[in-house]
Amino acid sequence: MTRSIGVCYYPEHWPEEIWAEDAARMAEAGIKWVRIAEFAWSRMEPEEGTYDLDWLDRAVDTLGAAGLKIVMCTPTATPPRWMGTKHPDMYAVDAQGRPRGFGSRRHYDFAHHGYREDCARITAKLAERYGKNPHVAAWQTDNEYACHDTTVSYSPVALVQFRDWLARKYQSPQALNRAWGNVFWSMEYASFDEIALPNLTVTEPNPAHVMDFRRFASDQVAEFNKVQTDILRRHTDAPLIHNYMGFEISFDHFKVGADLDVASWDSYPIGFLSQKVQASDAHKIHHLRTGDPDLQGFHHDLYRAVGRGRWWVMEQQPGPVNWAPWNPAPLAGMPRLWAWEAFAHGAEVVSYFRWRQAPFAQEQMHAGLLRPDSAPAPALAEATQVAAEIAQLGEDAGCAKGQAAIVFDYASAWAWETQPQGRDFSYYQIVFDLYRGLRRLGIDVDILPPDTGALGDYKLALVPAMFTLPDSLKAAITAHEGIVLVGPRTNSKTPDFAIPTPLPPDLAGLDCTVARVESLPPSATVSLHGGGHFKRWFEELESADVLLKTEDGMPAVVGGNLRYLAGWPDDAACHHILSDAAKAAGIVTETLPDGLRRRDTQGHRIWFNYNPAPVTHRGLTIDGCGVHIEKL
Amino acid sequence: MTRSIGVCYYPEHWPEEIWAEDAARMAEAGIKWVRIAEFAWSRMEPEEGTYDLDWLDRAVDTLGAAGLKIVMCTPTATPPRWMGTKHPDMYAVDAQGRPRGFGSRRHYDFAHHGYREDCARITAKLAERYGKNPHVAAWQTDNEYACHDTTVSYSPVALVQFRDWLARKYQSPQALNRAWGNVFWSMEYASFDEIALPNLTVTEPNPAHVMDFRRFASDQVAEFNKVQTDILRRHTDAPLIHNYMGFEISFDHFKVGADLDVASWDSYPIGFLSQKVQASDAHKIHHLRTGDPDLQGFHHDLYRAVGRGRWWVMEQQPGPVNWAPWNPAPLAGMPRLWAWEAFAHGAEVVSYFRWRQAPFAQEQMHAGLLRPDSAPAPALAEATQVAAEIAQLGEDAGCAKGQAAIVFDYASAWAWETQPQGRDFSYYQIVFDLYRGLRRLGIDVDILPPDTGALGDYKLALVPAMFTLPDSLKAAITAHEGIVLVGPRTNSKTPDFAIPTPLPPDLAGLDCTVARVESLPPSATVSLHGGGHFKRWFEELESADVLLKTEDGMPAVVGGNLRYLAGWPDDAACHHILSDAAKAAGIVTETLPDGLRRRDTQGHRIWFNYNPAPVTHRGLTIDGCGVHIEKL
Amino acid sequence: MTRSIGVCYYPEHWPEEIWAEDAARMAEAGIKWVRIAEFAWSRMEPEEGTYDLDWLDRAVDTLGAAGLKIVMCTPTATPPRWMGTKHPDMYAVDAQGRPRGFGSRRHYDFAHHGYREDCARITAKLAERYGKNPHVAAWQTDNEYACHDTTVSYSPVALVQFRDWLARKYQSPQALNRAWGNVFWSMEYASFDEIALPNLTVTEPNPAHVMDFRRFASDQVAEFNKVQTDILRRHTDAPLIHNYMGFEISFDHFKVGADLDVASWDSYPIGFLSQKVQASDAHKIHHLRTGDPDLQGFHHDLYRAVGRGRWWVMEQQPGPVNWAPWNPAPLAGMPRLWAWEAFAHGAEVVSYFRWRQAPFAQEQMHAGLLRPDSAPAPALAEATQVAAEIAQLGEDAGCAKGQAAIVFDYASAWAWETQPQGRDFSYYQIVFDLYRGLRRLGIDVDILPPDTGALGDYKLALVPAMFTLPDSLKAAITAHEGIVLVGPRTNSKTPDFAIPTPLPPDLAGLDCTVARVESLPPSATVSLHGGGHFKRWFEELESADVLLKTEDGMPAVVGGNLRYLAGWPDDAACHHILSDAAKAAGIVTETLPDGLRRRDTQGHRIWFNYNPAPVTHRGLTIDGCGVHIEKL
Ligand SMILES: [Zn+2]
Ligand SMILES: [Zn+2]
Ligand SMILES: [Zn+2]
Repeated sequence: MTRSIGVCYYPEHWPEEIWAEDAARMAEAGIKWVRIAEFAWSRMEPEEGTYDLDWLDRAVDTLGAAGLKIVMCTPTATPPRWMGTKHPDMYAVDAQGRPRGFGSRRHYDFAHHGYREDCARITAKLAERYGKNPHVAAWQTDNEYACHDTTVSYSPVALVQFRDWLARKYQSPQALNRAWGNVFWSMEYASFDEIALPNLTVTEPNPAHVMDFRRFASDQVAEFNKVQTDILRRHTDAPLIHNYMGFEISFDHFKVGADLDVASWDSYPIGFLSQKVQASDAHKIHHLRTGDPDLQGFHHDLYRAVGRGRWWVMEQQPGPVNWAPWNPAPLAGMPRLWAWEAFAHGAEVVSYFRWRQAPFAQEQMHAGLLRPDSAPAPALAEATQVAAEIAQLGEDAGCAKGQAAIVFDYASAWAWETQPQGRDFSYYQIVFDLYRGLRRLGIDVDILPPDTGALGDYKLALVPAMFTLPDSLKAAITAHEGIVLVGPRTNSKTPDFAIPTPLPPDLAGLDCTVARVESLPPSATVSLHGGGHFKRWFEELESADVLLKTEDGMPAVVGGNLRYLAGWPDDAACHHILSDAAKAAGIVTETLPDGLRRRDTQGHRIWFNYNPAPVTHRGLTIDGCGVHIEKL
Repeated sequence: MTRSIGVCYYPEHWPEEIWAEDAARMAEAGIKWVRIAEFAWSRMEPEEGTYDLDWLDRAVDTLGAAGLKIVMCTPTATPPRWMGTKHPDMYAVDAQGRPRGFGSRRHYDFAHHGYREDCARITAKLAERYGKNPHVAAWQTDNEYACHDTTVSYSPVALVQFRDWLARKYQSPQALNRAWGNVFWSMEYASFDEIALPNLTVTEPNPAHVMDFRRFASDQVAEFNKVQTDILRRHTDAPLIHNYMGFEISFDHFKVGADLDVASWDSYPIGFLSQKVQASDAHKIHHLRTGDPDLQGFHHDLYRAVGRGRWWVMEQQPGPVNWAPWNPAPLAGMPRLWAWEAFAHGAEVVSYFRWRQAPFAQEQMHAGLLRPDSAPAPALAEATQVAAEIAQLGEDAGCAKGQAAIVFDYASAWAWETQPQGRDFSYYQIVFDLYRGLRRLGIDVDILPPDTGALGDYKLALVPAMFTLPDSLKAAITAHEGIVLVGPRTNSKTPDFAIPTPLPPDLAGLDCTVARVESLPPSATVSLHGGGHFKRWFEELESADVLLKTEDGMPAVVGGNLRYLAGWPDDAACHHILSDAAKAAGIVTETLPDGLRRRDTQGHRIWFNYNPAPVTHRGLTIDGCGVHIEKL
Repeated sequence: MTRSIGVCYYPEHWPEEIWAEDAARMAEAGIKWVRIAEFAWSRMEPEEGTYDLDWLDRAVDTLGAAGLKIVMCTPTATPPRWMGTKHPDMYAVDAQGRPRGFGSRRHYDFAHHGYREDCARITAKLAERYGKNPHVAAWQTDNEYACHDTTVSYSPVALVQFRDWLARKYQSPQALNRAWGNVFWSMEYASFDEIALPNLTVTEPNPAHVMDFRRFASDQVAEFNKVQTDILRRHTDAPLIHNYMGFEISFDHFKVGADLDVASWDSYPIGFLSQKVQASDAHKIHHLRTGDPDLQGFHHDLYRAVGRGRWWVMEQQPGPVNWAPWNPAPLAGMPRLWAWEAFAHGAEVVSYFRWRQAPFAQEQMHAGLLRPDSAPAPALAEATQVAAEIAQLGEDAGCAKGQAAIVFDYASAWAWETQPQGRDFSYYQIVFDLYRGLRRLGIDVDILPPDTGALGDYKLALVPAMFTLPDSLKAAITAHEGIVLVGPRTNSKTPDFAIPTPLPPDLAGLDCTVARVESLPPSATVSLHGGGHFKRWFEELESADVLLKTEDGMPAVVGGNLRYLAGWPDDAACHHILSDAAKAAGIVTETLPDGLRRRDTQGHRIWFNYNPAPVTHRGLTIDGCGVHIEKL
């Protein structure tokens, strides 16, 4: 596998006179890839049907002439202003019923078929012109689907499509009524045209209604993307990519990814720690300028799964950003560390966002590799260093297969939002907590999609918190030879979002019934025998095979090779429970110091120190923010 | 008085094949009452004018055949979907101007006369069919009026009715302008048609405007209910009941209750503690799985007043619920304890909600007496035990008359919301704090309505925080022979919500003038001589009869037999002030340990231990979550 | 300069029979000024075109006969109900798109030209009638512009005017696109009619768009006010005044003030401390009943600048108010202290709000000099005492010129809101923190407008946090002979709200480049060498002239006479940095005890003790809440 460095560039933002110098400086820094054009629709088609792509031709030529490979983007995340005149109903509508209008970006409803046609038109225009261009070596569709909470829209357009989607799924309103249990509060429908979107109800709507709406909304993203990939496939052999987000679960990335060749994501470690991570204040302050030590790895492993092995970081944070609640600057070394960590987890390309900080408009406070005055920002030297280091290290067959696997299921994330049972509950967070527990034990992890039909030869597989198991996965779990840890809430719902009978988890070979569940406020936890606690969630299990008990003598983990977890473990409980599981699985573990992580590739073991200060571990001292590469 | 156990049942949720077995199991458990039908309108009348009550006939027959008495409900809390097509303007509108649409329950505006007519029609249909049915032994109107904040609606329909209501009350816009003081900010109206609802104003609307709107909204609930009771009275002699809520003050329950025979309420101790109680985190965690030790008693006493002596618990929490911020499971013993506490306070029936946990729709995470798989949930054995215990104990002439009385006034709750003067101010809370103070002293309490014309022979009567005293109550207070404790804010407003002259409290025989008031943030309190503090609220009193001073020498309690309280007392101050008042009143008090409470019936003294662990008091040890019954 | 006491009075609220007695009591108390009529439009013009000013004539006569001078107000803050029938689109619209209707006050959109015409009409009516009236000695336009967040409106009317405003400013949409950088996300406009207001966008709108909208909204206030001043000037020679607010930065007060003769503001120390001040809980509790010791002084100095030397307190808090989150009562002495502090800072008049507490409508819980029952409230005696004291002290040539100056710029306040980069960032707060730092050193401060062309002979001048420096101020800064302290963020934007090149601050004679900026959460601060911290904001500076470093060795203050501050200093850092700057400037400082402040007039040094308890400083003991006047 060849690793390379890239950068995001906006020729339309800069005078044409400096393009060539920019390209030369990129090449000089060792940058191989440059992504362009994803917000430039108003320059490509200033009026409907009037195209101007000459400037883009010249940009491609200039960059290509410097030896750079181009990622060409469809510009559909930013429809021009005239599009809204053409389609006044194309804007999404928020849960309060307010249209989300023009003036920033992502101002469109995925379900609007008229807009999809215009997207097809501009995609075809670009595909025809650049599909065979020798410099255009990859394509990106749109930009950051779902960003700014745009997957779900409560528009009239979405309503019409949702009714059709329901009609196709259920065929009759009576079937829908039965599936949703609409008898419950006289919610029965006589026609699909009576069904509304599940917002602005007096109290919570039927969770089955909400779940179908979430599935529908996710499908719209996949359909929207496929319109573009179908066209691109007809004109190019270059790989098709989308740049996904961190912490984004509103659509099924596996479904979108099925139509693409490579997954990529936009990695902003400092911004995400500030905005998204649930952690103690002490942890957040300790990692304020480094980012969380597990967050990037989790996404790397997730998107490697979404890309079926092929993935990039399309946007890598180079300095302070503009969009988090607070925006600290990374410590020196971190832009290099983040890139190396991505490569260790198998990334083909790490592309910094952006080349030069734009002095105008919404992101003017977002750092680039260059300052607005074209002087180098600190990250330029680090990117240059990484480019040199990867060249020096040479080929590597990619990241090593993980010792443990975790199944990740987007529909379960919607389910946890639909029926949390407790404030601040999140599927994302419980999976991440378990991932962190494995990583602190030095275990490399692979992520698997929910429709996986086999758990392979993983000695340890986790299927936490997954509301509905497909039959294929159920079979894989019960057939697996290694240790499988499931629960809590795993298999707790039918596909129609009802409680199944027999009661969950109802897995062959596992003597376990969830008799009762409870959610707990932050200051109430359940102490476990041997240390650690369950937090937020606890299930009363009936089982004859108790592996671990709570201090009160209730089952905490039950089963044998297939085992069930009765609650949401805190860090100490994760350590305890996952150590036991790893031992049972025959995995050698190594408890890592706080903030130190490692990942194996097929040829190397690479260490990352997420602490500002040096760490010594087993005789090896690694600098603060440092990377250490060992040959295996 | 005969005590009995009941249950809520939804035959329409289950296959008809299992009804008989369900009925047999209920009877076997000692259950005497079963409530049915309150959400089944879409099954009773699937299309407008097309009725199907055969299934309900069969359900009544099946349950009745097992010896169960039925509470038949009108289904008007859940109008079917076709009703919204018939009356598109029937939905309530929230304070932000958004219609609260179909898809859950309570999707109607109390002020919509067209919908009232349809409610009359379905009520008549049921009344005609079951009014004389021997198994139907009680009726419930609608379900949980006001639940999900549905009393107040800002709809066009409400506006039309509000203008009429104002025109009837004031007769001329000039009279309204004078009463409201509309000269204040040039808010004068020339016509009733110029008056809007008091939402979406630039800053706060006139409090007199708000108060009239609150009175109007409360009246709509009473009128809505009376439409149904008028019809039911013509067809049945069975008692008419409504199931009120906990912590619900948005309408005048005494006014609604006047048209009913029995009050009932829906008691969810664990959910309420999590969602509604203002208390320290330590208290909430200590009682996490028991509920607050005074909350249920307060409501029991309140609804005994609303029911003029006759009251039920219509829905008793059996296990974890689904709707609170967090939903812990009750400790073993609590479902029994709660039932016994209700009986001690005079309940005729305690009815558990619900028979079997529904696996579908909004409440699928709400426990029942049975699990979704029909196995017994833990509460079934406790309900069975209670049924046996009450049978064994036999008849009892009802709860004993309280030693102290508290006047409770819904209009004052609206007044505190309309003019709080401080964040987190609540009439409900200050009354409850004083109630708790009495209960910790072992004092049994009766609640009195605001239009009470005499305070009876209560040795101690409290009239706290009641903004406007009717003349009858004023007379009763000044004529009372026992100790009366009033204030703060008592009688501080005219009926038109203005400050009266002479200044409050202006009570004959009480030398007291409120010269100035202030509200205080949480960390600023006023220390009292001898311990305790005022919190949130303090009044500067002018009086020659000072009974208690603040540490700064200001009056804290003034008067003699009729005494005035200058602030909102914390727990220690309540203990101090109420002990003094009880001593003056000749009431023997007994400070109870934390979490231990007792209530006298006419034949027994019953003790309740709201602590998870045993408590020993005066040589008597009561188990954690235990009940102890002594013969008097 | 003659100092006098005034009061706000509403004859229309009281029976005409008591006007004369009220006037006599005012005169007896030493009150010289009485403000009337600002909310009385519905009484002046009960129907459109039907005027009734006879009652106002009689009120003027009655008050004038008692020797009182009248401030006559235009009543345009409270248009009568019929106005909304005439102009249904006159109401402002909030950011969520909801009209802000009739029912309180300030229910109008500044941009509505039809309403402006009606305001002109009623202003002319009053001006013609009272312009030469010997008792009417001053005029107030409207009341508290911007109160209740009314400057910015998202109405259709505002949209039309905004497009015209943009067309006048930019002449072509292409020029606007270039200025705003609309190429960024394909946000380019082909016509001014395509531009929307910057609310309800999918994510943040272009900050240049927001800033122009803020400038537009500010201009509407100035235009609205000028309609009235132009008319008044034609009929009266009395000074024209507006009563501004505390903490209000939504419009450019210097621009509005240019059309007026005297600035005034409404000073509510207790309410503001509760509602507006960012401070520790300990500080807020310590000053709960005194108000913040620097808040009033800051506004006094600011409004002295807005009034070009002439200013009043138009409304002075006399007791508890009704509108803050909590409303404590002032300690005895504070209503006197506040008045004296205003006089020390140069006020001509301090006018208490209000004469008698109104028993009805929105402000019934707002204290006056009289209670609702006409008995004296505590502040009456204090007002009377102040009146006597100022008479006794006699003439004084006004407040002394400050030793230090601070430039205050409203547009920068909008800029900080538009692009905070961190939660809770506020231009107001950082300027206030520096002001407090100077005041704790005993330094008297003058405030300067942003268009100042010279910094005069101030030994020390601060230009903190001002996003865009006009050329005149830039020249003044670089030409100044004293010490000038600028930064952070000073001169960080072009007039089009872009980052300039060369990078900021780009000031001649200052070797300083802001290489990178970061915002910080509350628990992350940057320690300074020698004590104190930067909080919230830190800039990495390039400079050869480092005056102060951080503990990590980064520049914290750089330059020489012209010096740049790299972050937001906390109290200790302010003390440290401002002491150094004062010493360099040759200003003698004196660190004052907590809560003790002083201000020099041209004849006296006046001390204010904002502590409840006495303070001894340099041998002088001042009572709690006390004032001490020394002759200079
Ligand atoms: Zn850490
Ligand atoms: Zn307790
Ligand atoms: Zn202080």
